[in-house]
This record gives sequence, C-alpha cells and structure tokens, in this order.
Amino acid sequence: MYHMEKQMKTTGLRGQVAGSTALSTVGGAGNSLTYCGYSIEDLAQKASFEEVVWLLFYGKLPTQQALLDYQDTLKSQRDIPAPLITCLELLPKTTHPMEVLRSACSLLGNLEPEKSFKNQIQAATRLLAVMPSMLLYWYHFSHHNIRINPVTQDNSTAAHFLNLLHHQSPHPDTVKCLNTSFILYAEHEFNASTFTARVCAATLSDFYSCITGAIGSLRGPLHGAANEEAMALIESFKDANDAEKGILDKLDKKELIMGFGHAIYRESDPRNAIIKACSKKLSMQSNNPNYYLISERIEQVMWREKRLFANADFFHASAYHFLNIPVLLFTPIFVCARLSGWAAHIMEQRKNNRLIRPSAEYIGPPLKDWINLEAR
Amino acid sequence: MYHMEKQMKTTGLRGQVAGSTALSTVGGAGNSLTYCGYSIEDLAQKASFEEVVWLLFYGKLPTQQALLDYQDTLKSQRDIPAPLITCLELLPKTTHPMEVLRSACSLLGNLEPEKSFKNQIQAATRLLAVMPSMLLYWYHFSHHNIRINPVTQDNSTAAHFLNLLHHQSPHPDTVKCLNTSFILYAEHEFNASTFTARVCAATLSDFYSCITGAIGSLRGPLHGAANEEAMALIESFKDANDAEKGILDKLDKKELIMGFGHAIYRESDPRNAIIKACSKKLSMQSNNPNYYLISERIEQVMWREKRLFANADFFHASAYHFLNIPVLLFTPIFVCARLSGWAAHIMEQRKNNRLIRPSAEYIGPPLKDWINLEAR
Repeated sequence: MYHMEKQMKTTGLRGQVAGSTALSTVGGAGNSLTYCGYSIEDLAQKASFEEVVWLLFYGKLPTQQALLDYQDTLKSQRDIPAPLITCLELLPKTTHPMEVLRSACSLLGNLEPEKSFKNQIQAATRLLAVMPSMLLYWYHFSHHNIRINPVTQDNSTAAHFLNLLHHQSPHPDTVKCLNTSFILYAEHEFNASTFTARVCAATLSDFYSCITGAIGSLRGPLHGAANEEAMALIESFKDANDAEKGILDKLDKKELIMGFGHAIYRESDPRNAIIKACSKKLSMQSNNPNYYLISERIEQVMWREKRLFANADFFHASAYHFLNIPVLLFTPIFVCARLSGWAAHIMEQRKNNRLIRPSAEYIGPPLKDWINLEAR
Repeated sequence: MYHMEKQMKTTGLRGQVAGSTALSTVGGAGNSLTYCGYSIEDLAQKASFEEVVWLLFYGKLPTQQALLDYQDTLKSQRDIPAPLITCLELLPKTTHPMEVLRSACSLLGNLEPEKSFKNQIQAATRLLAVMPSMLLYWYHFSHHNIRINPVTQDNSTAAHFLNLLHHQSPHPDTVKCLNTSFILYAEHEFNASTFTARVCAATLSDFYSCITGAIGSLRGPLHGAANEEAMALIESFKDANDAEKGILDKLDKKELIMGFGHAIYRESDPRNAIIKACSKKLSMQSNNPNYYLISERIEQVMWREKRLFANADFFHASAYHFLNIPVLLFTPIFVCARLSGWAAHIMEQRKNNRLIRPSAEYIGPPLKDWINLEAR
C-alpha cells in the first residue's frame, strides 16, 4: 500500500526504558511481581482488592479505619447517572463489551468531568465503583431485556460484581476467588494499555481520556483477550486425554497456544500458581471439574514438550468458568481490576511530567515534484 | 505521594526512535515538512484536503476520477445515526468539546463497528465525513438550542464545516483558508496523539478505539490546545503597540508565550508562512484587521528579542478568528484534520505490526514484609 524504501522497523520499544515507576516490578529474578514493595503472593493471600487499590494510590497499606472508609466510599458511588443509562440502552447486544466500557467511561467523563487534577483520586474511585455497574447494566439489558438496580450493599467489589451478574448474594468462596483475580490483574508496569494511559496523561489530558484510551488498547486481541482464547481452547476438548492429543497435534502443526509464555517473565508467571489454586478449589466444589482437569493437562504437556509455562491468563479461563462468568465478560473484568493500576500510573505520570513524544525513522520516498490533477 | 527512592526519569522518549514511517518527514533540514514525498508548500497551495487524505491513505496522488469518487463518498456519509443524536443531546453545554468528540467517536464505533481490518479505509472515511456533523450538531443543540441538519451538498470538508457552523454557503476565500488549515494539520509523524493511536493499533484493537484514544491525547493542554492559548494572548491586547509592550513585559517576567518554538523544528515551522498568508488575506477583507496586526507584531518581537519563530498554531488563532470560528472549536477542528494522519498511521502500524510494550525503570521500595491489618 505504501511506497516503502526499506523494511519498517518494528521493535515495539521492546527492552527500551520509556520512563520509571515506583508502582510495580515485573520479572525481577525471572519470576517475581511486587506492588509498591509487597509480593504478589502476600497480596493475593492476605489483602482485599480494595486494600491493593489503596496501596497503589497512596504507596502504603491503609489502616483499618482508612480501609473501612474507602470501602464505604466505593459502596456509595455505584449508581449510574440517568443520561448514561439512556445511552447504554441504545447500544446493540452485538456490541463488543470492551467497546461498551470505552463509551461508558468516556460518557461518564462528559457527565462528571474531573475539572481539576486535585480530583484525580475521586475520579479513579468513582470509576472503580461504577465500572461493574455500567458493564452489567448493559449486559443484562441487551442480553436479557432486564433493567437491573446497579446498587448493592456488598462490601467488596468482587461480591458486588457477582451479585449484579447472578442476581443473588454470592458464596464466600466465589467472592474470594474473584477478589484474588482482581488483585492479580490490578497492576503490571508498562504493558500496552497502561502505556497508552501514560502517553495520554503526559499531554496533561483529563483522567477519563486516559482511561478511555487504555480500555481501547486492552480491547486488542494481542493484549486483553488471552483468557478468552484460552477458554476457547479448553472448551474444544472433551477431557484431559483428548486435550493431550489435541495439544500435541497443534504443536506438530506449529499452531500458537494462547496463555503460555510471557514477554517479560523468563522462568514462570508468579500469578499462575495463585489463580491455578483458586480454579482447583472451585473445581472440586463443582459437579463437573472437567475444565480444570483439561487445563492442568494442557499445562503439563506444554511444559513437557516446550518448556513453556502457563501465564496469568491460562487458569483464569477455568476459574471464571467455575464462577459462572460468561466468556464475553472476561476482558471487561480485566478492566474492572486494571483500572486501579492505570489510575496509579496516571497519577505517577502527572507528578513529574514530560510529554511522551518519540521520533520515527523515515522510510518513505524522497522529495517529489508536484503533478497537477489534470496531468495524472 | 509515592515513596520514591530516586528522582524519576522523564525523558519522554525524546529523540528515541519508536518505529518507522513512510508518511511524513518533520524537520528535515531544520524546517521542512513532506507528506508521502510532497512538500507542505505544494500541498497547501495546490491540493484539496480530500486529495491529501487520499495521498495519505494510498501513498500516491489520486487521479481526477478517483478524487471525484472519493469526494462523493465523503458527501454521502455525513449523516449521524439516530441513537448517536440522542446521546449527543444528553451531553451538557459545559462539556469540553474534545470530550464530546471522544464519546461521539466511541459511540459511532459501537453502532457501526469496523468488524474486519478490511474495512479500515471505510471506517476512516466515515469518521472524516461525520466528525464535523457530530461536533456541530452538539454545538448548535447545546449552545443555541437548534437541531441542525448535518447533511450538506458541499463538495469539500471545509465548505461543509463552515456551512454547518454558520448556516449559510461560505465565501470561497474562507473555504480556501480552512482547506489550507486542514492540510497543514493533517499529519505530523509521531506526535503524542498519533503515537497513542499507534500504541493502541499495535494491540490489534479496532479502528475506533485507536481514534478515540488519539482524541483523548490531543485534548491535553500540552498537545492540541496551543492555538486556543495563542488566541487568549492576542485577545488580551488592544492593538499592536499594546502587544509589543505586553510581550516585552511578559518576557521580562519570564512568562511562557504560547505558539512559539517547536520540539523538532530548529529554524522555522514551514506551516507558519502558509497560515500567516491566509490570515493576512482574510484580515484585509475584514472590517477590523486588528488581530492580524497584533499577531504580526508579537511575531516580530519574539524573533527580535528571543530568536523564537512562530509555529503552526500561532497564526491559526487569528485566521480562525477571521473565519468566525468560536475559540471553543479550535482544537476540535484539529481533530477533523488530524484524523487523516491518525488513520494512515493506524493502517501503517497494522501492516507490519509488533506490540508496543516498553520497559520501565523501577524506582520503588525493595521487598517489604507484610503487616496484618490489625497491626497497622
């Protein structure tokens, strides 16, 4: 399509430092992850998602009172403004739910603008509180023709989400699993959506522009959709033996298996063992643990044959399956969690800002003479 | 706010090559600009905006027939879908118009999704055709309580825009000036909004996500709003002598003067002479050329005192003033033009893609022991 003088460089900034962060380490010692100095293992086992949000926003763990206050603030902000409800009801059932969240976030910014950077934590908190409401209001309206009440009295974001999704108070084990998932997905350094948010923040644009842009990037199949694709793979097998046969066959054909390996972790993804344990526990409580057994076998085969480890996305697929979450909502849940990391990065970028404006190598044609329209 | 171990690096990728492009050169020989090999001087003087769009999309100049066909396609796609009209009418008068365009673009993607990358030129064309309609529909509805018909039979985007804005067929000289402005603002390599679009495109997200993200970045005061700030400066003086006095005073106080200098051009901004000539011509036809005379004097003083040249934004302010364009719409017009460059960059990124995922330098605390909630 373009007249290219030479092959385009597509390094994708891999390995190039684009800035600094105090928020997380990814892949130190080949397999570790910390948020503000705390290991992902401690956070997943001992914290609530709301505690992790507070940590990311303030750089330290909240006191008991601060955490209670923050939970109350989140609870009080779950309602959707009436004009936004009208807009959500106009979006077709066939709309990609990530594109619904992109519009919903942008419209919320129209109706409740940030106004001043002094309000950034309020804007972030409002979005954390209302994102599940906006998603599940649209989902139930477009798919089931039901207008839900998006406000619940659940203390945690995880319980609120499951309550809105299933119209009943969730079992504590399912809340615990989704809470853990939110923590695992909360923050991950300069991934593509977070980097989008920072590029936007660096122009000193408003908070909602940054998050809207980040949702758009997370929507991309190379970024947010890996757990959906893992699910499609798992669903394609009838049991563990069938999976072993199928995976060997795919490896023979050099097909790509989603949910394995990682751009930065070299030895393992520390989030995998955690979500795998959640999936296993839920599978044993279910009347059909098949998807867990299939997943476990795929993991074994991939390691035995290719020395490839499962990443955070792989066991998320079966875990969400046991939580009765429709595949359609897998990536939007990622938004509800990663919002916290995006928000913290926007605040960090604003704190010591410089416009992010790289250079490009020119590979187009040299200067050309103009040709008038009639002479072409 | 964060526990920082050392000062954050904020190089903003300045001077770092983040990829390659065949679309434009910025600042070759200190002051030149070309689109696909053609100089900005030739393009501004001899082309129509629609011709430049075609050049950016296909890498070569259109034939007479191809250009006529493309103009017809654009003319046929100016109408706004009914659900989007409903949403636009719900956005308050006080909404930042860039945030209106951000939502409008996202919602259009919900209602008319791209579906396949094969449709990318159609998506880009649809957005080019309907962006002025969406902007001016909202503007007239929210500010004047008028529901305009967003469809006109004007051949050019510039005439269409002015017709919708002023409810009358525009004078050919004003169309020519706005057409030139659209060409000058069409494309500018890896600026922050274009880079946002490319980061999003590199996840293989949809076209509307990329453009929505780019609008969010252009909204930032460090990026798109320079011509608005230049206008505020010009408006603050009563005549050229007052401007000279005021600028000398500001320079004494080391205040920043917007619209001067450039991150990449070292000697001059090639777009300045072109838009300055447009502004001058319109000023001589107006009954009050004062804003041109003030601008000219500020330019003289800035060069004499600081050897700083006016950039593309500075004379855009007075030019738009003589076109009777409200300041509120200055940055949104930039969207209507730069859409073409964003679209071309999205297509170029997709053509030879790799995920854009830089690294970050970690400057946070070392590993910490967990402290239970009760013990804090």
